[in-house]
Amino acid sequence: MLAFEAALAKAEAVHGLILPDAARRIGVVCATFEPDLSQLRAATACDGVVVADLVKQLRKAVGSPFSDCVHLAATSQDVIDTSLMVRLKAVAFLLSNRLSNIAQAFDDLDARFGKARLMGRTRMQAAIAITVSDRLRAWRAPLEGYRDRLTEQRFLVQFGGAAGTLDKLQDKALAIRAALAQELGLSDEPQWQSQRGLIADLASLLSLISGSLGKFGQDIALLAQAGDEIELAGGGGSSAMSHKQNPVAAETLVALARFNATQLSGIHQSLVHEQERSGAAWTLEWLILPQMVMATAASLRLAFELTGNIRRIGAVKS
Amino acid sequence: MLAFEAALAKAEAVHGLILPDAARRIGVVCATFEPDLSQLRAATACDGVVVADLVKQLRKAVGSPFSDCVHLAATSQDVIDTSLMVRLKAVAFLLSNRLSNIAQAFDDLDARFGKARLMGRTRMQAAIAITVSDRLRAWRAPLEGYRDRLTEQRFLVQFGGAAGTLDKLQDKALAIRAALAQELGLSDEPQWQSQRGLIADLASLLSLISGSLGKFGQDIALLAQAGDEIELAGGGGSSAMSHKQNPVAAETLVALARFNATQLSGIHQSLVHEQERSGAAWTLEWLILPQMVMATAASLRLAFELTGNIRRIGAVKS
Amino acid sequence: MLAFEAALAKAEAVHGLILPDAARRIGVVCATFEPDLSQLRAATACDGVVVADLVKQLRKAVGSPFSDCVHLAATSQDVIDTSLMVRLKAVAFLLSNRLSNIAQAFDDLDARFGKARLMGRTRMQAAIAITVSDRLRAWRAPLEGYRDRLTEQRFLVQFGGAAGTLDKLQDKALAIRAALAQELGLSDEPQWQSQRGLIADLASLLSLISGSLGKFGQDIALLAQAGDEIELAGGGGSSAMSHKQNPVAAETLVALARFNATQLSGIHQSLVHEQERSGAAWTLEWLILPQMVMATAASLRLAFELTGNIRRIGAVKS
Amino acid sequence: MLAFEAALAKAEAVHGLILPDAARRIGVVCATFEPDLSQLRAATACDGVVVADLVKQLRKAVGSPFSDCVHLAATSQDVIDTSLMVRLKAVAFLLSNRLSNIAQAFDDLDARFGKARLMGRTRMQAAIAITVSDRLRAWRAPLEGYRDRLTEQRFLVQFGGAAGTLDKLQDKALAIRAALAQELGLSDEPQWQSQRGLIADLASLLSLISGSLGKFGQDIALLAQAGDEIELAGGGGSSAMSHKQNPVAAETLVALARFNATQLSGIHQSLVHEQERSGAAWTLEWLILPQMVMATAASLRLAFELTGNIRRIGAVKS
Repeated sequence: MLAFEAALAKAEAVHGLILPDAARRIGVVCATFEPDLSQLRAATACDGVVVADLVKQLRKAVGSPFSDCVHLAATSQDVIDTSLMVRLKAVAFLLSNRLSNIAQAFDDLDARFGKARLMGRTRMQAAIAITVSDRLRAWRAPLEGYRDRLTEQRFLVQFGGAAGTLDKLQDKALAIRAALAQELGLSDEPQWQSQRGLIADLASLLSLISGSLGKFGQDIALLAQAGDEIELAGGGGSSAMSHKQNPVAAETLVALARFNATQLSGIHQSLVHEQERSGAAWTLEWLILPQMVMATAASLRLAFELTGNIRRIGAVKS
Repeated sequence: MLAFEAALAKAEAVHGLILPDAARRIGVVCATFEPDLSQLRAATACDGVVVADLVKQLRKAVGSPFSDCVHLAATSQDVIDTSLMVRLKAVAFLLSNRLSNIAQAFDDLDARFGKARLMGRTRMQAAIAITVSDRLRAWRAPLEGYRDRLTEQRFLVQFGGAAGTLDKLQDKALAIRAALAQELGLSDEPQWQSQRGLIADLASLLSLISGSLGKFGQDIALLAQAGDEIELAGGGGSSAMSHKQNPVAAETLVALARFNATQLSGIHQSLVHEQERSGAAWTLEWLILPQMVMATAASLRLAFELTGNIRRIGAVKS
Repeated sequence: MLAFEAALAKAEAVHGLILPDAARRIGVVCATFEPDLSQLRAATACDGVVVADLVKQLRKAVGSPFSDCVHLAATSQDVIDTSLMVRLKAVAFLLSNRLSNIAQAFDDLDARFGKARLMGRTRMQAAIAITVSDRLRAWRAPLEGYRDRLTEQRFLVQFGGAAGTLDKLQDKALAIRAALAQELGLSDEPQWQSQRGLIADLASLLSLISGSLGKFGQDIALLAQAGDEIELAGGGGSSAMSHKQNPVAAETLVALARFNATQLSGIHQSLVHEQERSGAAWTLEWLILPQMVMATAASLRLAFELTGNIRRIGAVKS
Repeated sequence: MLAFEAALAKAEAVHGLILPDAARRIGVVCATFEPDLSQLRAATACDGVVVADLVKQLRKAVGSPFSDCVHLAATSQDVIDTSLMVRLKAVAFLLSNRLSNIAQAFDDLDARFGKARLMGRTRMQAAIAITVSDRLRAWRAPLEGYRDRLTEQRFLVQFGGAAGTLDKLQDKALAIRAALAQELGLSDEPQWQSQRGLIADLASLLSLISGSLGKFGQDIALLAQAGDEIELAGGGGSSAMSHKQNPVAAETLVALARFNATQLSGIHQSLVHEQERSGAAWTLEWLILPQMVMATAASLRLAFELTGNIRRIGAVKS
């Protein structure tokens, strides 16, 4: 959020809305600003969003004569949504790396065990024999597509002002928005404050990732139950039975998949975003999206660990 | 499904798996085949899928000596998923047309009322004045992206045989799959029988469409409640109050948006598709996807009707 | 709905609001009335509810001089919600019977196989040996509670008039509501037109039932996969592999459980029922509740069938 | 969890399974035990549940000769589920109090404004005039039922041992379970480790509460938008428009209602709890239930605040 305010001031200075000295001062303050968090908390409980008080504190820190140049022509949603995009861009990079690592781990398993025989199972019944490669392909195939989508995802600046019209910037609105986007490494697009398809798309991708890894987890748990076609290290211990090795990571992958599948519904409910800004729909996003991000990141971490714990997969050669 | 069986026979004849006469005979029978529906129903209740009995009936109709050439090397899921893709391709065309019509209707409204003043509202409170054009842009903006996605969507053949390995076709497997895809106007891709991201993606797009139209409906309902900035024709009558004109289409758009947002969760639950084919996850898709398609098509129809019922939008000139 | 209109006329005649002859005439007409369905369909598409046109048709059929006595002081929601209660009361009876049958079938299995050994499994791993009785108890235990809840469930009349205040009935409102409830075999309670907890509670119970049966189905499918501790008849056939016996009913129980779990979310979304009557929230209920009822009834039917197909459960005696 | 271990030791001492001195020692240690949290965290990541390591640490703290008397015959799920019940019992008390406060606040509003006129609105359109009392009744009516359910809710001990059969306790199992329940203030019932209806019921009640309060919030937000029938204090400030008073609490009530409605689906998905203990279904509960509790508690807090901020409701007398 501070990066947003600094970048906005810079963009507005370039286009003559505020003085270069103002932008400089705001940039310097934002670089090291430490807000009063308990005050932020109290104000957020009242305002429903953190920005009004953050801006107030920031203006005070910037001080005279440039305090009024902070947050000029912007609104809370510009700060929240744009800074969300900045954070999600970094998240996408992290998730994309994890996807690559898992795909590589599947390739390694393929090199070691790919030709081994595995009983193909349909509708919970033995069907015909397949190879470990065949099963690995089903686990691996979707991951590359997800990684490409994360890589190609455009993260958009949100800049609309009070009601989305950037009314205070008049003929400089588009140029300032473009400069703001560039400064923050985001794509320049018209405001999307009441059009939440972008968020819903990202949430859907998160759930696709954890869903495909949930399939992997479910398959591992089923293999672990049967017991003859897999050997796993790193199982979880039991407080009652010391002999058990529970496939905890595999089960957790299933839980995280079902968790994200559940959450996705709430994000899509928030597409019904009334008028120029819905406090209700927006708050609903906030309650859900961060958890989906964390669940997906956890799912990727666990799936990678799980690949490392596969000591053997496929029938024992005889 | 009959188109699948005819196309499969044709592809297998081209590659020498069955005789050209067999393919011809199968094609002729499929073109006019009328299955015994009550028998299909009973068999589906037992088998969990319609294909086994359909193939049995079809083989009988094709008769000796070509009956064994029907459904050769295929499995139920190949028929179900591929024929689903054929149907969804047609659906995408229909939805895409409806999206264009609505976008056009918004353009027409813009031409007529775009410059009129509308109170911009954020968090259910009057904010600052905007124009009708501004509001129309928020309604219209997402639609073009959806239409492009429908147009660019690839619909994939599903062809894997008993456990996804096309084991019976050996070195001709890829060529026959390609020929089958081409014959049916689908894209040729490896089997995706346990990788349901494609279905989940389509379902997400359906929910995005109805979600954006739900936002339109919600906004219209709120305008209709306030009453001063919109004039609507075609409202619903009341059994108790003859003076009322209820914005039924607008409310239904909200209901359909929330319906699809709800359903999407179930489709994502079915990503946890165990092993080579999950009867449970697959059946769950069947219970949900058709309804999402119908809800989306209804949403588009109602949204178009609603645009036609807007007699005036924006403040009355004074 | 016709039963509602007849009962309402009767109650209003008893309390002097309309003439006994009017109530008699309305009762006679309602007993055999066949509405023009295509007209109803067209009117529903416009009004968002079937009642306005149904009443119009009914008034015409009743004819002069009593046509105005039809639907007196009532509103659409009174007809829809009350008739829903009448139908759900019958549904509860049916579901309750099916629950009893399944409980009995579990008792029968207990008598035959209860002492047999079964491997207890926790976290998808063999834990310690239990008996078939132990497993049967986990399947059976919740069912009795559900049956009791269905039996004790109160089904409420809904009667509020235009905005819930029965304004047209003045000091006779409560007496007429009580008489209406009694005539229809429902409980007499104040209107609940915007308070949908009753619907959400019923939907939750439906999902509890299918959820517990889904656990039964999942356990059977897992037993069927392992293969040594169960012998099932009546499995589904495969179009590709004639040797297979798929546990289709068991899988379908899982699918129906997940279907209802998905739907329940939409019913709870409709608790946000704005003002005196929300077209959006109400329509959302209509899109979901009937399907939950059918899914639950199907789940009970399949669970009963499945119990009958268990030829053996537990380890083979040696 | 420590209370569980202390109570279990006490119950087992009473029934002669361990020495009274052992129970005393365990009780003393549990009363002040401070676990090594970072070690717990690491072990939980591996075991999928905190109990195995907690017991290990606790045994070490209890020391020789009684260390083996800790957690005797119990399993992780006994500790987790029973301690959850102890916590939820306290939660129910808190929620119940908040419900009473809100009902009282509605009564106070009724005393002050009940006779004022309010426009009754159905399907987002003015219907007929009602009174503020009428609207208050719709908000208040469901709350009493929820409070009664919280008050009457039975919170059950969970005690089953490794696979639910309390195999190690033989003929003393039932007596020890009863003593354990009594010591912890819980109801004594057979194990419910794979039968999660109790959890699903509680979650449903949480969502009913937030759902009914969401209806209250939605109505207030709609009143605030129209502006003439309500006067609210304590609105949220805007970073862009100093004139605005946003009905933040009202909107947040809607968001929390939709959040819980979303989550409920995930809890019902976890009814499909395979075999004697499902790591996947259980973990899914953990990811969701705590948040539903907090969302409901927040919803009650905000609804109470909101009632206090209603300065006037109903039409201004003229």
